[in-house]
Amino acid sequence: LAVPEWSDIVEWWPRLEAASEKYSRGVVGIATGSATYPGAAVLSVSGALAGPAGMVRYAGGAAGHVLREHPSVIATKRVADAGRVQAWVCGSGLGTDEAAATELRTVLATSLPVVLDADALTLLVNGSMADQLRRRDAPIVVTPHDREFARLAGGEPGDDRVGAALRLASWMNAVVLLKGDRTIIATPSGRAWANPTGTPVLATGGTGDVLAGLLGSLLAARLSPERAAVAAAYLHGLAGREAARRGPVTAPDVATALRDVVPASV
Amino acid sequence: LAVPEWSDIVEWWPRLEAASEKYSRGVVGIATGSATYPGAAVLSVSGALAGPAGMVRYAGGAAGHVLREHPSVIATKRVADAGRVQAWVCGSGLGTDEAAATELRTVLATSLPVVLDADALTLLVNGSMADQLRRRDAPIVVTPHDREFARLAGGEPGDDRVGAALRLASWMNAVVLLKGDRTIIATPSGRAWANPTGTPVLATGGTGDVLAGLLGSLLAARLSPERAAVAAAYLHGLAGREAARRGPVTAPDVATALRDVVPASV
Amino acid sequence: LAVPEWSDIVEWWPRLEAASEKYSRGVVGIATGSATYPGAAVLSVSGALAGPAGMVRYAGGAAGHVLREHPSVIATKRVADAGRVQAWVCGSGLGTDEAAATELRTVLATSLPVVLDADALTLLVNGSMADQLRRRDAPIVVTPHDREFARLAGGEPGDDRVGAALRLASWMNAVVLLKGDRTIIATPSGRAWANPTGTPVLATGGTGDVLAGLLGSLLAARLSPERAAVAAAYLHGLAGREAARRGPVTAPDVATALRDVVPASV
Amino acid sequence: LAVPEWSDIVEWWPRLEAASEKYSRGVVGIATGSATYPGAAVLSVSGALAGPAGMVRYAGGAAGHVLREHPSVIATKRVADAGRVQAWVCGSGLGTDEAAATELRTVLATSLPVVLDADALTLLVNGSMADQLRRRDAPIVVTPHDREFARLAGGEPGDDRVGAALRLASWMNAVVLLKGDRTIIATPSGRAWANPTGTPVLATGGTGDVLAGLLGSLLAARLSPERAAVAAAYLHGLAGREAARRGPVTAPDVATALRDVVPASV
Repeated sequence: LAVPEWSDIVEWWPRLEAASEKYSRGVVGIATGSATYPGAAVLSVSGALAGPAGMVRYAGGAAGHVLREHPSVIATKRVADAGRVQAWVCGSGLGTDEAAATELRTVLATSLPVVLDADALTLLVNGSMADQLRRRDAPIVVTPHDREFARLAGGEPGDDRVGAALRLASWMNAVVLLKGDRTIIATPSGRAWANPTGTPVLATGGTGDVLAGLLGSLLAARLSPERAAVAAAYLHGLAGREAARRGPVTAPDVATALRDVVPASV
Repeated sequence: LAVPEWSDIVEWWPRLEAASEKYSRGVVGIATGSATYPGAAVLSVSGALAGPAGMVRYAGGAAGHVLREHPSVIATKRVADAGRVQAWVCGSGLGTDEAAATELRTVLATSLPVVLDADALTLLVNGSMADQLRRRDAPIVVTPHDREFARLAGGEPGDDRVGAALRLASWMNAVVLLKGDRTIIATPSGRAWANPTGTPVLATGGTGDVLAGLLGSLLAARLSPERAAVAAAYLHGLAGREAARRGPVTAPDVATALRDVVPASV
Repeated sequence: LAVPEWSDIVEWWPRLEAASEKYSRGVVGIATGSATYPGAAVLSVSGALAGPAGMVRYAGGAAGHVLREHPSVIATKRVADAGRVQAWVCGSGLGTDEAAATELRTVLATSLPVVLDADALTLLVNGSMADQLRRRDAPIVVTPHDREFARLAGGEPGDDRVGAALRLASWMNAVVLLKGDRTIIATPSGRAWANPTGTPVLATGGTGDVLAGLLGSLLAARLSPERAAVAAAYLHGLAGREAARRGPVTAPDVATALRDVVPASV
Repeated sequence: LAVPEWSDIVEWWPRLEAASEKYSRGVVGIATGSATYPGAAVLSVSGALAGPAGMVRYAGGAAGHVLREHPSVIATKRVADAGRVQAWVCGSGLGTDEAAATELRTVLATSLPVVLDADALTLLVNGSMADQLRRRDAPIVVTPHDREFARLAGGEPGDDRVGAALRLASWMNAVVLLKGDRTIIATPSGRAWANPTGTPVLATGGTGDVLAGLLGSLLAARLSPERAAVAAAYLHGLAGREAARRGPVTAPDVATALRDVVPASV
């Protein structure tokens, strides 16, 4: 069981070069939120904008909300119309209706790394998407909390959270980021990490959306799914601690603090 | 007549533990504001987000405004669709039409602690809801200013504000938070508190909405109605004083300052 | 020709007392902006919120914009529906169509102090409202820049700005605040003030809206029209200078800086 | 090949005088963005508001978004209705449909300096507008990145970026601002500048919109197209560096930082 250090995160973090341009840095696609739950979209985009990608595209029913809050984002209504990206984040606030399932299917049909969270996990469990998932070659990262884990794995993680995460990772052929006070990252090949920066102040609505967005940005910038998940959990925890130094912690506070804790890119 | 001290508020304030998660911290439901008066909703949610609850749900006609300002909130149009919460705040900016009365009735029909303010107090006086109120087992906190008090009690509080608040608390079987330069909290069982942090800068539109939201968050986090009311009044006063040090005081300034004066949760 | 000092402004500025409540502090009504020009409404409300009144009501076509930016405001579509206020601000961004004229007529028909600016001045010149203006008993403050002055007075102010302002004040039976590098305030009874805090950085779109809002708040708080105009010009100039210390100056910057330069109310 | 210094920028920067008023400082027109891409409009207006012009007018499909973010702006739907300006910025986020082409034609038909960027460059290449461009007497500044340059010039700039930019400037009879790590400014008369403040952190979506807006403000304030382009590139680079000192850099961060690096106007 490995424990990442700050120096790991700094080493992995993509650096800018003179020839960098926005596309070469990576473009992250965010397919979260909906007309009913626009906040999830705004928050996951906030997380993505703190990451190393050069551009954020949003696809979904919360485009108006996203554009009002984040004018640098290019937004469309559907994943199919979003244009080229290097990784997708899909799930939180998406809903679980047929339209949501279509978006998730479109994301899974790409050959790009994807982060799946919240409603996407519910759709995986309910629907016929498990097949599509297992046939997939490109990397997947799932980010369940305990109840979502139970739905995916058929039971709570229990006391051996590392073992439970490793088993789910192997079964799903996906990197599993199991959220908790001590978040666990497990890979299909059997490696596991324990995040040392956890803090209970992250136990507040919407913080997981920020984490998923950051994770997607790291994938778009070509980090491996394992490193992206470990780095995102590490920095998310730091951001929660920093936010708590400033006052009561809401999800937008975590997104703001995240900007103050990520490594420099120059 | 008791006077709370800072050490009381700190002692009562819920602390986070390693196992905390957003639902275990408590979810507060906010049923305030309307399409006509969306600001009341935005402000009461601001107050709630400064409190110890792990999540805020909003139900009402100002959902769009709330989501734009507070992306971590889950919003619905009606209380009946809001999902599970541990306490409700109902009243300010709700209006007094039949739709508003329906929302208030739905809130009162729960077995949860509720905070009633402004238009909810008017509806109680006008309507046939007094019966429903007195039959209720779960705690109620009402937060009238002097004119609202007069409508509830049949007369102004007069010079003996403590006695007047105690009589109303007994008659309504509710905790009464009588707003003023020296806010009084009175319980149905005959205890009374005088808040020592009052300041006239809170005499500006919308500050009561912030107070009600904070109070609801404290109830959702399982403080007793008495302690929740005393703590909310105390911190609201501190926030007003802090805001006044920074410039002219509007209600959003009080909500901002509130975040700087609440006790730490870790 | 008098020149106000900081000590005058401090002396005139309303102070809060223990018994203050939002209505006793005064309520200012803002009838500016429109669906086409919502920014003027947002800016004049910003100015009003920096002043001593206890509450701001807005009436007009920009209600949605105002409520999004300023949640403590109570907004309606028309002046006739706005509820009780102690002073009105009318004009900038109102437009000059029949609907605008109706709003202006409704404001003038009250027996309250009013501030008239921009489009309201155009409507006065074009329409049949000059009569209504001169029959009016309650105080009026007009805040023209040079071109608006020329339309009202039939000619540019010329080199003798004090004389020109005094003649217009006498003819209109209104306090005239003639904007410029050295703003002049002239009263119908023949007194004149020169504002010492002028700065050319205020020569940017929308700053006049902020000034008008502050002026209205001072009137609602029962300052005399003369003192309200002198104090508003003085503080507006200070705010411009303060904003310029922080960077390039836009109208929202002036509104923000205004909050840092107004006297304390406690 | 000249390299500008800070003292050049300061010397060129317009200074305010006692008699300055918003129109005499210059009014810049912004015709960028659309209902689909409102962010480009918000960002280019942000850039314009950091510049020396006294007023910003916006014309386009993102008027609602612009007014919400920038209340001092006067907005219309079409360039033809925008009222008087002294320079236009046209292009980014405009789209490339017939409506967009109409707006570009209207801008080009004026005798005012114009900045053309992004979609406007695509429209120039695709359409029949090359003629209109070459017949034009008033100054034009184009701000391509390498791919846009290739479309305009028929090939990538290659290693001799200065030579390539000079050839395009001569052929288009326009000032060419060729974006890159070391931005090149080339004039039709054969002068070239290399910007010394470049930084790869500007390789993020939307920063070009901010640059174009600032450039337009400088043109409206009567700088020559050459100086306006050199100064805008210089300050844009400084802003990127300043933003990077504060955290990860998004386009709104550059716009914010720009306000902290522009020379004082008094």
